[in-house]
Amino acid sequence: MSLENLLDHAKQTSALSQVAGLISWDQETMMPKKGNASRAEQSGAIAAVIHGRNADPRIADWMEGVDRTTLSEFDQRNVAEIERSHRRATRVPERLARELAVAASAGQTTWVEARADKDFSKFKPALKRNIDLKKEAAACLIEDGQSAYDVLLDEFEPGARTQELSDLLESLRPALVSLRQRISEKPAPKRFIGAFGKAAQLALAEKIAAAMGYDFDAGRLDLAAHPFSSGSVNDARITTRVDEKDPLNCLYSTIHEVGHALYTQGGTDEFLPAADYCSMGVHESQSRFWENQIGRSRQFADWLYPELKSAFGEFGLNSPDDVYTAVNRVETDFIRTEADEVHYNLHILLRFSLERDLISGALAVDDLEEAWNTQFKADFGLDVPDPSLGVLQDVHWSAGLFGYFPTYSLGNIYSACLDQAMREDIPDRDTLIEKADCASTLQWMRDKIHSKGRVLQAPELIERATGKPPSAQPLIDYLERKFSGLYNL
Amino acid sequence: MSLENLLDHAKQTSALSQVAGLISWDQETMMPKKGNASRAEQSGAIAAVIHGRNADPRIADWMEGVDRTTLSEFDQRNVAEIERSHRRATRVPERLARELAVAASAGQTTWVEARADKDFSKFKPALKRNIDLKKEAAACLIEDGQSAYDVLLDEFEPGARTQELSDLLESLRPALVSLRQRISEKPAPKRFIGAFGKAAQLALAEKIAAAMGYDFDAGRLDLAAHPFSSGSVNDARITTRVDEKDPLNCLYSTIHEVGHALYTQGGTDEFLPAADYCSMGVHESQSRFWENQIGRSRQFADWLYPELKSAFGEFGLNSPDDVYTAVNRVETDFIRTEADEVHYNLHILLRFSLERDLISGALAVDDLEEAWNTQFKADFGLDVPDPSLGVLQDVHWSAGLFGYFPTYSLGNIYSACLDQAMREDIPDRDTLIEKADCASTLQWMRDKIHSKGRVLQAPELIERATGKPPSAQPLIDYLERKFSGLYNL
Repeated sequence: MSLENLLDHAKQTSALSQVAGLISWDQETMMPKKGNASRAEQSGAIAAVIHGRNADPRIADWMEGVDRTTLSEFDQRNVAEIERSHRRATRVPERLARELAVAASAGQTTWVEARADKDFSKFKPALKRNIDLKKEAAACLIEDGQSAYDVLLDEFEPGARTQELSDLLESLRPALVSLRQRISEKPAPKRFIGAFGKAAQLALAEKIAAAMGYDFDAGRLDLAAHPFSSGSVNDARITTRVDEKDPLNCLYSTIHEVGHALYTQGGTDEFLPAADYCSMGVHESQSRFWENQIGRSRQFADWLYPELKSAFGEFGLNSPDDVYTAVNRVETDFIRTEADEVHYNLHILLRFSLERDLISGALAVDDLEEAWNTQFKADFGLDVPDPSLGVLQDVHWSAGLFGYFPTYSLGNIYSACLDQAMREDIPDRDTLIEKADCASTLQWMRDKIHSKGRVLQAPELIERATGKPPSAQPLIDYLERKFSGLYNL
Repeated sequence: MSLENLLDHAKQTSALSQVAGLISWDQETMMPKKGNASRAEQSGAIAAVIHGRNADPRIADWMEGVDRTTLSEFDQRNVAEIERSHRRATRVPERLARELAVAASAGQTTWVEARADKDFSKFKPALKRNIDLKKEAAACLIEDGQSAYDVLLDEFEPGARTQELSDLLESLRPALVSLRQRISEKPAPKRFIGAFGKAAQLALAEKIAAAMGYDFDAGRLDLAAHPFSSGSVNDARITTRVDEKDPLNCLYSTIHEVGHALYTQGGTDEFLPAADYCSMGVHESQSRFWENQIGRSRQFADWLYPELKSAFGEFGLNSPDDVYTAVNRVETDFIRTEADEVHYNLHILLRFSLERDLISGALAVDDLEEAWNTQFKADFGLDVPDPSLGVLQDVHWSAGLFGYFPTYSLGNIYSACLDQAMREDIPDRDTLIEKADCASTLQWMRDKIHSKGRVLQAPELIERATGKPPSAQPLIDYLERKFSGLYNL
């Protein structure tokens, strides 16, 4: 009975977490603007309920009644995850949990206004509040040898440690800097030029999503200022945005979010914690794999070119080769979400180091804008003209998401590991992609990743899927190979 | 501190109820079809949380610590409403609450099937189950002198008593029967004829909503199979539907739901129970007032006619007079939701008497279909061809909603009382409506109804607003005046 009680309780809590996710989706897509203040209260109220359920003292009693040695690997993980949530909830007081949720919701509202006004000072109080609360929460959770940042990281990437992660990510830097340098000496490829109607962009985005295997009966596509995916197995929603001068924004945002949503739709259970996604890094590996290894491949351009022609008529490019080079155009610019594969991880390295310092106290919020601009100049060679193109460009910190950024680069690293292994298992994969036949690609991911839940931690999951421990080398090799070809390096 | 604790607890519960409302809105408007099963789990989980909060034993302790004699009228009502929810939550055992929810959900499923099959006998077991459970719940809640039906009524219309309500509603019958009889001898007015595009209908619906004073920054308009309104002060959403052969469906559904939403947007507090709507009857008075007294007035037709012309071109009607007669066409038919102002309350009187007898035991479920058909023949002069046009047409009983129907007629009665008083206070109101200038109309409702919350019970609220106790006479006078003119009676 104890196991049954534990799982039953966890399922109900999962259902409430899904509700919390849904009202957050609504906030980004549907909510009228005056709804902000009450939405913050609603989010706070449901966060408090979830917190209270995770902290329920009966969990400890039920836990004692379970003989873990007799459990399946899956149920062992269920119990371990329930224990993990229980530990987080009992150590973080309910008052603090509620304040965190309210600050995150209010922070996003303030961030939207500050970004529109290009005024970092308007955002500072909300950011300080979020950082103070996150540090207070981390202090409650710290275990032997962990830093505060380790604790925050663990929320998104269970078991990860700052130093190891830093070593892994920094091992990318020399290759990225070298590539960036060599490419910058070459002429820039052609761009998409034309008028790209909103309806035609969204129709093509839907067609691509369906070709990838996204199930629209278990999801939907909407517009949001900052595209994201959310939901659970049978209701996994995605969002995109439209720039009428540049269809790549909409199309590749969609492909990215569909990558996430395919992982979600491929889950084996909607409510049990061991069937949840493995880690944010693994989640990101799914979006990045589809966006880059598939969506920015030479083969995909064969399929995409005629679709673009039929959707938009003339757009300044005249062959699949032109499309392939245009979607892989490398350019030093300000915005992370629009960055190419060469610059993207440099953006992450910047944010990773800044947020580590914000949490450790080595950097004050008052000095953040200047620190950003200085480091950006050093890494990218550009002066940031205003904070909407700099420190205010991302939603994460406004929502209290510290420890999240590095999982993007982990995702890039893992996606290259998975791509390398998949090409060995499915030798004709690239030929299939020329026809947008994604079935075997999706099935491989279903088998190796989607159906595995979080029974294993990320490095082990990737090792089982690929036969090798994860490293940055496959990503470095992939980028060198691809961009050497594209730019005649 | 006790009052503060009570109010704080109630506000958090309100926030969670808003979340429950939002996920229900999402289910009707946005949710992909595979989301049904998990949405049921999510709704069940949040309903259990709200029930648990209302039953929280600390409420009784806090209640004892409050000296009610020192409270404002507003806080007295807050405390009384919290006590009312607490009593309902603690007296109905959790087992019964769950069985009620399951029976309501299962009842709706069975009802859909039985209605499709036009077979009342298929629906009988589910209906019996719902009635038995509602009677059991009523027995838990009964107070001195109340009948079981009084208890059910009280959920929607606080303080209402069956006998008084019956006297009030039945006082409508002779006038309605007489009007119906006299109109039936006259030729039928012309109808709208043409093709009415969806986008044009929705654009006009939005224009009307804005003219009425609906704040789109605190709400939104979407499509739903069965139009409804939902939400709270700063996020009061409405839905409508589109029939491309008949624009009145969309336009008058919108006006009706905007009427509800204006009441919601006019509230003074989003979370405190004393600021909630007064009763379902008062809520319906707001939708009906805008739909009928304003939207079906001769003056509104002056504004609407050129708008219809510009939206749809030719549609078979050639003057505001034609539009006025078409939107007030009287026709004896089977379906309540499509009934005109003359027939609507006869539909309600039928349901009201039948459900009272079902709850008292004077009528058995086995005899319900025959009782319906006999009474319908007497009231409407028509033989019911099959139960989908008769006893199976409405969802309410399948979902355990007994005591809800009479609030529709209360709404009609109250709307006429308010209309009569408003015309005295704003002598030029009708002239303003010719230009769709609704500001003074809305302000009057804001002052007299919207800002008053549920501090007073409905009859007292209406009396304070109009200077007279509510009666059916203003509605009878309004209908006689209007339809005598329209049909040359």
